[in-house]
Amino acid sequence: MLSIGLIKEAHERIRPRIHRTPVITSRSFDEASRRQVFFKCENFQRAGAFKIRGATNKILSLTEGEKRRGVVAFSSGNHAQAVALAAGEAGVRAVVAMPDDAPKLKVAATRAYGAEIVFYDRHGEDREAVAHAIAEREHLVMVPPYDDYLVMAGQGTSALEFLDEVPDLDCILAPCSGGGLFAGVSTAAKGIRPEIRCFAVEPETGDDTRQSFIKGERVSIPPPPTIADGLRVQSPGALTFPIVQQNADDVLTVSDAEIVATIRFMLFRMKTLVEPSGAAAATAVLHGRLPSKHKRVGVIISGGNIDPDALARLLVEGDNPKPVVGI
Amino acid sequence: MLSIGLIKEAHERIRPRIHRTPVITSRSFDEASRRQVFFKCENFQRAGAFKIRGATNKILSLTEGEKRRGVVAFSSGNHAQAVALAAGEAGVRAVVAMPDDAPKLKVAATRAYGAEIVFYDRHGEDREAVAHAIAEREHLVMVPPYDDYLVMAGQGTSALEFLDEVPDLDCILAPCSGGGLFAGVSTAAKGIRPEIRCFAVEPETGDDTRQSFIKGERVSIPPPPTIADGLRVQSPGALTFPIVQQNADDVLTVSDAEIVATIRFMLFRMKTLVEPSGAAAATAVLHGRLPSKHKRVGVIISGGNIDPDALARLLVEGDNPKPVVGI
Repeated sequence: MLSIGLIKEAHERIRPRIHRTPVITSRSFDEASRRQVFFKCENFQRAGAFKIRGATNKILSLTEGEKRRGVVAFSSGNHAQAVALAAGEAGVRAVVAMPDDAPKLKVAATRAYGAEIVFYDRHGEDREAVAHAIAEREHLVMVPPYDDYLVMAGQGTSALEFLDEVPDLDCILAPCSGGGLFAGVSTAAKGIRPEIRCFAVEPETGDDTRQSFIKGERVSIPPPPTIADGLRVQSPGALTFPIVQQNADDVLTVSDAEIVATIRFMLFRMKTLVEPSGAAAATAVLHGRLPSKHKRVGVIISGGNIDPDALARLLVEGDNPKPVVGI
Repeated sequence: MLSIGLIKEAHERIRPRIHRTPVITSRSFDEASRRQVFFKCENFQRAGAFKIRGATNKILSLTEGEKRRGVVAFSSGNHAQAVALAAGEAGVRAVVAMPDDAPKLKVAATRAYGAEIVFYDRHGEDREAVAHAIAEREHLVMVPPYDDYLVMAGQGTSALEFLDEVPDLDCILAPCSGGGLFAGVSTAAKGIRPEIRCFAVEPETGDDTRQSFIKGERVSIPPPPTIADGLRVQSPGALTFPIVQQNADDVLTVSDAEIVATIRFMLFRMKTLVEPSGAAAATAVLHGRLPSKHKRVGVIISGGNIDPDALARLLVEGDNPKPVVGI
């Protein structure tokens, strides 16, 4: 099971291999949101996202025999690069299954970290099945993106550092996709400070966790159309969901237009690049989703990996239904 | 005269009103430049640039009578916003002369800080003459952008903080326009650590300081065509130049294409937004202008104010003659 103890062990294990990311504040953001907001900046993390925490914890926890065999992961995004980097540093073979239309930059980065890449047809093949087939054929250990206690414990280390630096937060918000980050962060935060409130944040078109949270059981949704490419899962994880259900005080949703406005705010006012998924929690605060009684607010910025072309589109899009806030 | 004492006094005076900006490092930048580089991030400064330091020092040093009269400044850029903000906070009237084609966002920001704006015709009128006429007519005190010892001392406080945090730098690099930042920074740095080497950095198409440094007297150049809009002055200042001449170990130049590549590197690898002028010193390090013996390198990132449209253009420009480094 996931526990604060497991998260503290993870931190001891991974600390030499990760950045202790900075916590930043912004007068402009505080004024615009009428709170005191602290941002834990995993966009400054190694490989540009929190994912290296979980991947490193999982890989360093393998037995020597497992390390000799190697690992496999499926991801078109930050998890792939994290597994590639963590495995490479640990001297462990890594195979990553990526869709054949994955962004070239991400393929190149994953390969540069030393991973072997196996492409699959996004429309014809199921990525999890592809990865499981590779694992079986080549005797590799799967590093799941979220549904694994060691992965969750690794992600939770971000909240350990956060509360060590700002102990008296009223609440903490994290983006929620499969739920690994939120499960780890909320377990760490409530373990250290039981009275803290925890909010998961999703795109409104990809609200599988919100629907599941309300219904009390895991709900599956169609592939969600959102610019937050890291938050496009269709249902919460089997292992993460019970933890999310227990720890979440609410599951908040935000629109793509609000995410874009928040990215622009953070870029031009705070001079900090955040990817769409990474901006979800900040978006909920900037756009009034959080009950006003929560004044001292912790926000996890989960990552900052965005392609130049995608960023350029966000900057010039004229049909953005909501104006940019405060620039 | 400018001295380390004047800079320390400035720091005491302005400290409550400015951010102590963070010093950041980047493994990617270190690998790409084969140095250990420390960045003093004035792009995170209030109003997005170092200029608030000098403006605040100048305005807080006025006599009570001068404060009652008010101040005037000429600038289309960061200095205007800095004077507006510093004057507003000190309860001092501020008038800013801006060209009638100044970017709307900058006009709006300057006005939002409480300054009155007087527009002039960029092609038909001399901005300095316009500002002097206003000063005389309305009995206002001029806040020069660089050619003033109190302004220079204010800018130098960034180096006081920098060397306080990283005392053992081999060298320090700062962008150079009129020379106020470089004069302040180099005086502070050599005052604290006499053996430190100081490098001023300019666009290669706007190398008035380099030409002057070589010739030993102030040289004027035609209006320089460079994307570094903060570095477009045509000659070094009368008061700054003797200090630049004495303190600079060299004046380095960089191309616009190299500046763009550096902005992209800092944005996509370091997740940090830097404006073209602000990136000049980092560009010199990333693109091999610094003698290789200097290993522990301090870089002043002078500002981060760039329009969304201008940034979008930098991201999509296909005719960029140099490829982006390291993405």
